[in-house]
Amino acid sequence: MSELRKDPIIGRWVIVAPERSARPKEIKQTQEERGKICVLCEGGESNTPPEILAFRNPGTEPNSPGWQVRVVPNKFPALKVEGELGKSGVGIFDMMNGVGAHEVIIESPSHELDFAFLPVEQIEKVLRAYKSRILDLANDRRFRYTLIFKNQGARAGASIAHPHSQLMALPITPKRLKEELIGAKAHFDYKERCIFCDIIRQERELKTRVISEMGNFITIAPYASRFPFEMWILPSQHHSDFMSVSDDDIAGLAQILKDSLLRLAKALSNPAFNYVIHTAPYRRPRRDYWTTIDEDYHWHIEIMPRVTTPAGFEWGTGFYINPTAPEDAAQYLREEEI
Amino acid sequence: MSELRKDPIIGRWVIVAPERSARPKEIKQTQEERGKICVLCEGGESNTPPEILAFRNPGTEPNSPGWQVRVVPNKFPALKVEGELGKSGVGIFDMMNGVGAHEVIIESPSHELDFAFLPVEQIEKVLRAYKSRILDLANDRRFRYTLIFKNQGARAGASIAHPHSQLMALPITPKRLKEELIGAKAHFDYKERCIFCDIIRQERELKTRVISEMGNFITIAPYASRFPFEMWILPSQHHSDFMSVSDDDIAGLAQILKDSLLRLAKALSNPAFNYVIHTAPYRRPRRDYWTTIDEDYHWHIEIMPRVTTPAGFEWGTGFYINPTAPEDAAQYLREEEI
Repeated sequence: MSELRKDPIIGRWVIVAPERSARPKEIKQTQEERGKICVLCEGGESNTPPEILAFRNPGTEPNSPGWQVRVVPNKFPALKVEGELGKSGVGIFDMMNGVGAHEVIIESPSHELDFAFLPVEQIEKVLRAYKSRILDLANDRRFRYTLIFKNQGARAGASIAHPHSQLMALPITPKRLKEELIGAKAHFDYKERCIFCDIIRQERELKTRVISEMGNFITIAPYASRFPFEMWILPSQHHSDFMSVSDDDIAGLAQILKDSLLRLAKALSNPAFNYVIHTAPYRRPRRDYWTTIDEDYHWHIEIMPRVTTPAGFEWGTGFYINPTAPEDAAQYLREEEI
Repeated sequence: MSELRKDPIIGRWVIVAPERSARPKEIKQTQEERGKICVLCEGGESNTPPEILAFRNPGTEPNSPGWQVRVVPNKFPALKVEGELGKSGVGIFDMMNGVGAHEVIIESPSHELDFAFLPVEQIEKVLRAYKSRILDLANDRRFRYTLIFKNQGARAGASIAHPHSQLMALPITPKRLKEELIGAKAHFDYKERCIFCDIIRQERELKTRVISEMGNFITIAPYASRFPFEMWILPSQHHSDFMSVSDDDIAGLAQILKDSLLRLAKALSNPAFNYVIHTAPYRRPRRDYWTTIDEDYHWHIEIMPRVTTPAGFEWGTGFYINPTAPEDAAQYLREEEI
């Protein structure tokens, strides 16, 4: 079974999942194993574990063709749903069992089109599947956070070309999210305003880093972008939790997500990218008497194109060098004709 | 001029260095530009900016052949030495000018041998050059931290195959280092012991994650390793600052560094890797009256093999999946015959 281990110095959790590949020989072979027949295509339903959720044509059976979006457990999960957390200390170290959910959201029955080129109604269904799964996993009291992420292209860590994203329900809040929550709370405690709302207000006035604005959403190139052409999509009005997005807003989000990814695909000729949804954790405690829950955090999607290779500098320090000014990136992306 | 920009939410600094490459077209071309004639080889001294430091054969002139290790400014620096910090606010954002040093340590006059295969005396000279440069840059009151890092192999972000490492003197302390300093201080405040010393004590007792121990140094696979075959080299006795390593210890460090990298090269067939020296920042203030400076931090080298492609999960969350248990990695590395 995999383990969650905590770095005792900085508190970062790591999943040690030896079942996914262990020995030096296997590491050397990983590259060659790729590119076989696709297990996610329509018609290959028996190649995946049984589906957890699917949006299907009326009258079709589960685990058979006739679906538009399909969610299945990851066949090689980094975390497993069965078992107790078993938190324990190992001398000065802390660990818990690798309990969690690891699911694959298959974004289209067809292998051919990249996510950005799917019809907007299809993207909307994918986002509805995200929301539905986050809501369902909220019922499991062991989980603190459900992370939705997408790896597109080998350079972004994707091992399967078929359009898909992934989900991990975690018994911990990931370090980066915790930092955002703490930073946003500090700002709120001092100013009684959401820091993300403040950023949106300023970006709208300046306009130089705004890529697009559609309905209730805005896409910006963040001021301190780590990566060339990094984009954040945020709800323009304050909203802490992706789990409570309305159906209307899911439709609007699908539009701006498609628009933003199409701009990126055109500007950089279909680069590899990752995106991650940052949202409030489950069951966020009320931390004090003068802040109501959800006033200080603001959910958003971070899109990270993978066009540069992060070097030792970045890995070893959490300090990034970005060769493209976000203002320039925003201008290029704005000017693409969609 | 490049800029240092601070993320207002989590406080991470980013270098925005548009001079290094800016437009979409250039990003697309980056891959093709590589692999031309080597500018770092002996005989090509005029291809680099004038040398800052060199260990040379007696009687040879600066910027001519006859050197063993040579330090030059980076020709395409992310930060520049000239200018004021110019700290300022931009609405709710904070920035300062991209002031700093960015240097290249050329580790050998010859192109052929990877770093681990250089004679141990040559590696010792490289480490002496690191120390000498960190000491020299300490005199510049604008700098808080000098970061030494090495990228070997394209997958690790190296754009030049000739053995070299890099150095950046920074007007800020990188985020990851700050987190380590804070974590180590919290441990010290509570236990009055260095957390790294505690880790070393426990690892020595358990032995399962110890890769080697030579002289005054120990190499371990850290308990919460982010990457397969991650290694940390630490002084076995408490020591906060790489800048004050003795000449004897530099010789000992060269031995264990070569040994550790050779084990890695053999176990995984010369994988790409990064290493970074983590050391105490310059002019660390005395923070309170009951802790003397330097009791709570412990310098070390982190070696990060680049055998997996970190995915959106890792980038977006600071949360890693490691498919190789550190105990297994340590065993493979221990058993390699060197």
